[in-house]
Amino acid sequence: MNELAGKIISGDIRSIARGITVIENDDAGSALLLKELYRHTGQAYLIGITGPPGGGKSTLVDKLIKLYRGQKKKVGVLAVDPSSPFSGGAILGDRVRMQQHATDGGVFIRSMGSRGHLGGLALSTSDAAKILDAAGYDIIIFETVGIGQSEVEVAGRVDTTVLVTVPGLGDDVQVLKAGTMEIADIFAVNKADREGVERCVIELGQLLSIKEMDQSTFLPPILQLVAKDNIGVAELASAVGKHREYLMADNRLDQKRKARLKSEVHNIIINRLDKWARARLTREMEAGEDLEGLYQKRTDPYTVAERFIKELQI
Amino acid sequence: MNELAGKIISGDIRSIARGITVIENDDAGSALLLKELYRHTGQAYLIGITGPPGGGKSTLVDKLIKLYRGQKKKVGVLAVDPSSPFSGGAILGDRVRMQQHATDGGVFIRSMGSRGHLGGLALSTSDAAKILDAAGYDIIIFETVGIGQSEVEVAGRVDTTVLVTVPGLGDDVQVLKAGTMEIADIFAVNKADREGVERCVIELGQLLSIKEMDQSTFLPPILQLVAKDNIGVAELASAVGKHREYLMADNRLDQKRKARLKSEVHNIIINRLDKWARARLTREMEAGEDLEGLYQKRTDPYTVAERFIKELQI
Repeated sequence: MNELAGKIISGDIRSIARGITVIENDDAGSALLLKELYRHTGQAYLIGITGPPGGGKSTLVDKLIKLYRGQKKKVGVLAVDPSSPFSGGAILGDRVRMQQHATDGGVFIRSMGSRGHLGGLALSTSDAAKILDAAGYDIIIFETVGIGQSEVEVAGRVDTTVLVTVPGLGDDVQVLKAGTMEIADIFAVNKADREGVERCVIELGQLLSIKEMDQSTFLPPILQLVAKDNIGVAELASAVGKHREYLMADNRLDQKRKARLKSEVHNIIINRLDKWARARLTREMEAGEDLEGLYQKRTDPYTVAERFIKELQI
Repeated sequence: MNELAGKIISGDIRSIARGITVIENDDAGSALLLKELYRHTGQAYLIGITGPPGGGKSTLVDKLIKLYRGQKKKVGVLAVDPSSPFSGGAILGDRVRMQQHATDGGVFIRSMGSRGHLGGLALSTSDAAKILDAAGYDIIIFETVGIGQSEVEVAGRVDTTVLVTVPGLGDDVQVLKAGTMEIADIFAVNKADREGVERCVIELGQLLSIKEMDQSTFLPPILQLVAKDNIGVAELASAVGKHREYLMADNRLDQKRKARLKSEVHNIIINRLDKWARARLTREMEAGEDLEGLYQKRTDPYTVAERFIKELQI
C-alpha cells in the first residue's frame, strides 16, 4: 500500500491534510490514493449544514463539534466555499476556527474552494470526506456558504441535510425555500431571538405542507435555535439522530448511498471530460481561425461544438 | 429560415417566449434555432446583477428597467434561479413583476431555473440572451439570486457585473467579498439607509485596495443606493455606462466577448457529454453488477469511471 494511504488510515492528521491537498490539486496520485482508501470508508455519518449567508452556520457547526466531542466522536468539518474559485479556498475565519480546536486531535477542519471546474467542488469535497472517513472520523460535516446549485450538490453528497435560515431575510427567502424544500431533512431557524421568527417558522410550515408526502416520508422538523448561546443545538443533534434512524430502516441509507456512488462516478467522468475539452479547445482555438470566425459570425458556437463532439464518436 | 427564428428577429414577444422554452427544454430544434439566430446577435449590452439573498436585487432591476425605458431602450431581464433545479424555474415573484410590465412591449422578463445539469443554467441563460439580442433588445439584465458558483458563471456571460450587497449581513460577507472581488465591475451597497453602511463601504474599499491593479485596470466604484426610493439608481446606470466606455477602448469588449464565446463552446460540449455520460451510466448500472459491486467495495468509483472514459479513446 501507498505510504500516504497507510498513514491516513492510522489517523495521522498531517497525512490527512496532505491527502486532501493531493485531491484538491488533482495531483497524479489522487485517483490512486482514493482507490486504496475506498474500501476503508463507509463508517462515517455525513451531515450537510447549508443555507444563505449570515445564518450563523459557522457558530452552529462549532457548537455541534463540542457536542459530538462530548460524546467522544471524532468530527471532521469540510467548509465548502463555492464563492472562491480564485482564492483557492482557505478562508481566514476557518484558520481561526482551526486554531481553536488545534489541540484536539479528534477535530479536523478544512475549507475547500472551487477551482472553477464543473462539478469539481462536489467531487473534491466527496473525496476529502472519504479521506476523513477512512481515517476514522465518525461525523463529517459539510458546511456550505451559499445558496443555489452548490447547496443542491452538497445535499446529494451527505446523509442528512440541515438547512439553516434566519428570520427577516426578505423576499429572496421565498426563492431559497422553494429551491431547498426538496433537499432539507431538517430546518434550523437560527437567531430565533430575533423579530420575525414566528413568521419564518409559519412560512416554512406552509411550504412543507405542500410537499408531497406519504406515510413513509420523513417529515422535516422545523427547529428554533440561538446557536451562539447553545440554545437548540442538542435538539438539532437529536433531530439528526432521528433522521439517521429513519434512514437506517428499510434500507433507505443503502439506497441513498448507492445513488451517491453513481453520482460520484458520473462526476469523475465529467471532470475528466471537462479537462479534455478545455485543453482541446484552447489548443484548437489558439492555433486556428475558430475564435475569430466565431466572433465575425462566419460560424456559430453550436457548429463548432458539434465538430468537437463528432471526434468522440459517441 | 425557420419560421420561429424569423418571428423572433421581428421582435414578436410570443415567439421569443416560445424560443426560450425550446432552449430550456433542450428540444431537438434548440441548436438549429440558435445557429440561425447567432448572426443576428451582438448588439445588446449584457449586465449582470448579482449578490446574496435579501439584497433587494429585484427592486433594483425594476428601477433600472424604468430608467432604461425612459431612454427608449428595450430591456430584457433573465432572472436566474439556481436554487430551483426541481421547480423548473418560474418564481411567483417574477410573474407578478411580469404583469407590472405586461403592457410594455419593450420589456421582457423571464425566470430561468436550472435542471441540475452541470453548466446547464449558464448555457441556457446565455442562449436565452441570444434570443433577446436577436430580437432587438438593447439591454439584457441577468439577475442572479444566490452567491457562489452560479454568480461566477453568470459574470463570465455578461459585459458588466454589478454586485449588490447590503449592510449587516454578518461574517459570511467576508466570504462573499473574497469570492466576488474578482468578478465585480461595480459594487452597489443597497439599503444604504440602514445601520452599518459606512463599515460595509470601508470593508469593500479595503478589499479593493489589495486587488492587483495597474493603470489600465478599471477601478470598481462603490455606490450607495436605496433602490426602493430610487436613490442612486441613475448613478448606477451611469457607472455601467462608464464601464462600457472602458471596455470599448483598446478592444477590451472584443476580447471579453471572444473569451465568452470560447466558454460557450466549451459549455455546449460538456452539456452534451454530460448527457451522454448520464444515460450511459444509468443503462450500465441498472443492467450490471457495478452499483452493487461499488457499494460492497469490490471495486471503487475511480476504477469504474476510468473504464467508461477508456471507451471514448481520448
